[in-house]
Amino acid sequence: MKALVFDKELNFVEDYKKPVPQKNEALIKVTYAGICNTDVEITKGYMGFKGICGHEFLGIVEDVNAENKSLIGKRVTGEINLGCGNCPDCFNNMQRHCQNRQTLGIFKKDGAFAEYVTLPLENIVEIPDNVPDEDAILIEPLAAALEILEQVHIKPADKIAILGDGKLGLLISLVLSTTPADVVTIGKHENKLEILNKQGIKTKFLQDANEQKYYDIVVDATGSSTGFEKAISLVKPRGIFVLKSTVADNKPLNLAPIVIDEITVVGSRCGQFRPALRLLEKKVFDLKPLVSKVFDFNNAKEAFQYAQEKGVLKVILKF
Amino acid sequence: MKALVFDKELNFVEDYKKPVPQKNEALIKVTYAGICNTDVEITKGYMGFKGICGHEFLGIVEDVNAENKSLIGKRVTGEINLGCGNCPDCFNNMQRHCQNRQTLGIFKKDGAFAEYVTLPLENIVEIPDNVPDEDAILIEPLAAALEILEQVHIKPADKIAILGDGKLGLLISLVLSTTPADVVTIGKHENKLEILNKQGIKTKFLQDANEQKYYDIVVDATGSSTGFEKAISLVKPRGIFVLKSTVADNKPLNLAPIVIDEITVVGSRCGQFRPALRLLEKKVFDLKPLVSKVFDFNNAKEAFQYAQEKGVLKVILKF
Repeated sequence: MKALVFDKELNFVEDYKKPVPQKNEALIKVTYAGICNTDVEITKGYMGFKGICGHEFLGIVEDVNAENKSLIGKRVTGEINLGCGNCPDCFNNMQRHCQNRQTLGIFKKDGAFAEYVTLPLENIVEIPDNVPDEDAILIEPLAAALEILEQVHIKPADKIAILGDGKLGLLISLVLSTTPADVVTIGKHENKLEILNKQGIKTKFLQDANEQKYYDIVVDATGSSTGFEKAISLVKPRGIFVLKSTVADNKPLNLAPIVIDEITVVGSRCGQFRPALRLLEKKVFDLKPLVSKVFDFNNAKEAFQYAQEKGVLKVILKF
Repeated sequence: MKALVFDKELNFVEDYKKPVPQKNEALIKVTYAGICNTDVEITKGYMGFKGICGHEFLGIVEDVNAENKSLIGKRVTGEINLGCGNCPDCFNNMQRHCQNRQTLGIFKKDGAFAEYVTLPLENIVEIPDNVPDEDAILIEPLAAALEILEQVHIKPADKIAILGDGKLGLLISLVLSTTPADVVTIGKHENKLEILNKQGIKTKFLQDANEQKYYDIVVDATGSSTGFEKAISLVKPRGIFVLKSTVADNKPLNLAPIVIDEITVVGSRCGQFRPALRLLEKKVFDLKPLVSKVFDFNNAKEAFQYAQEKGVLKVILKF
């Protein structure tokens, strides 16, 4: 099968071995895949991954290696963390923190930038009919945004700032704006902030955001280590700083303000798909403007390059 | 009056002007003062402070500039943060986070390494008769240890590691050991860890603490930026990392593990005195071994040097 494979460099391979579903796994024919910043980071060495990239996908189940074949033919996506199934984290439905986990297209498990992908049945999530492909393909980053609501108690009177107007920043803004809290997104790009303005969400340019120690909650979704100090300056004493950026560089950081102002820093990563699907079913926001371009999978390498250009939001591969 | 004054260098001054209590302030004749690492940091430039150092003290109220003079003659200590009295933080009894606060001997307010100190009446805390001076003088760092219980919900089945066997580390260990949680203190100094062992608290040498991602809660009280990475390695996914160390150096830090393992980092600083006093009244632990030496105040500079020697715990000045 065709696949986009990373092994020291990124190559579009025509004859990659088609995967065989193991016991209690499904074989899925991929229909759409999304390119994420993490995919780009992987090509720079993140997680030391080698293999097929890609963890955001939609597809049709083609085969199931289990007695119950009812999933065959269904339109699905899949949770990306594969737990060992035998540890307290897995028993608590926290496969995404299992210490022996594999992660689709990120760690020890071939991903979805390929014609076929396999996943354990427990990871498979069926897409309801009223959720179109163009929304469903954003379910993984949407779930990552929703993870903040899983971890932090957002109160109705909270003042919240989201730092960063990239894909994840925009999704977090949309998600947090489903609460009654007072939300503002701080970014650098007029065209991106406008996507939020059109959906009634307040925005602000970075150079105008000088509210020292003002916000109850600040989310750093800049994807850059420079966001850290700015975010810390905006959060009020005893406030919450949600850290979403995984950055490879080790920048010198001064942690003293965290102690002096008793700030709580909440690291936040992947979320669960089903709550994200419930939001998509309610059609509470318009995700279309978040997709910059759809490429044919045969042009995957070109799409990968395009995804790294300045100002580009989500890039989709169509199979 | 005599005073230990920092202004570029530390000097013992014989004729410092005796302070005059302003309206609703008390004048306190200092009887004991404790030397804290923060005092040492101040002599290295921390907070840009100039003036009389010292924020841990006991004394006798000599005068009160208010109608009610009932505090005169009482044995007291005082909360060290002076709020503006006119902001939401102050209204919420959070003077220690007031953005216009002064801090005794640390920021814009002469401290207690002097024969006399003044404090607002609302900061004054009377010492109950059954709490001896040698316990009461540790109330400020004890309150800072208790602040962890104010901020973090410690559950009975939690596994907790405290990193650091300095004064604050030992106090935190004693305080957290009042809970039913499973507490271990990790340090480098046999004599210091023994203080805990004698009070039934488990300890471990740093080189033997290799439980990766094991603890529900890890407290960094090393006072060193090197504690950060070790602490992060010990805390389990979705666990809590309490950061007590304020360090001046900006060390390069990799924050990615906080995001990947969704760790919550809780910055923790000063606490309230009254809960600390309640613990002291119950006499639940023995604080005497935490005091290394008592110096006459006239030898304050010598005491200050001694406090910085390796292996030394609390150094007390007696007036």
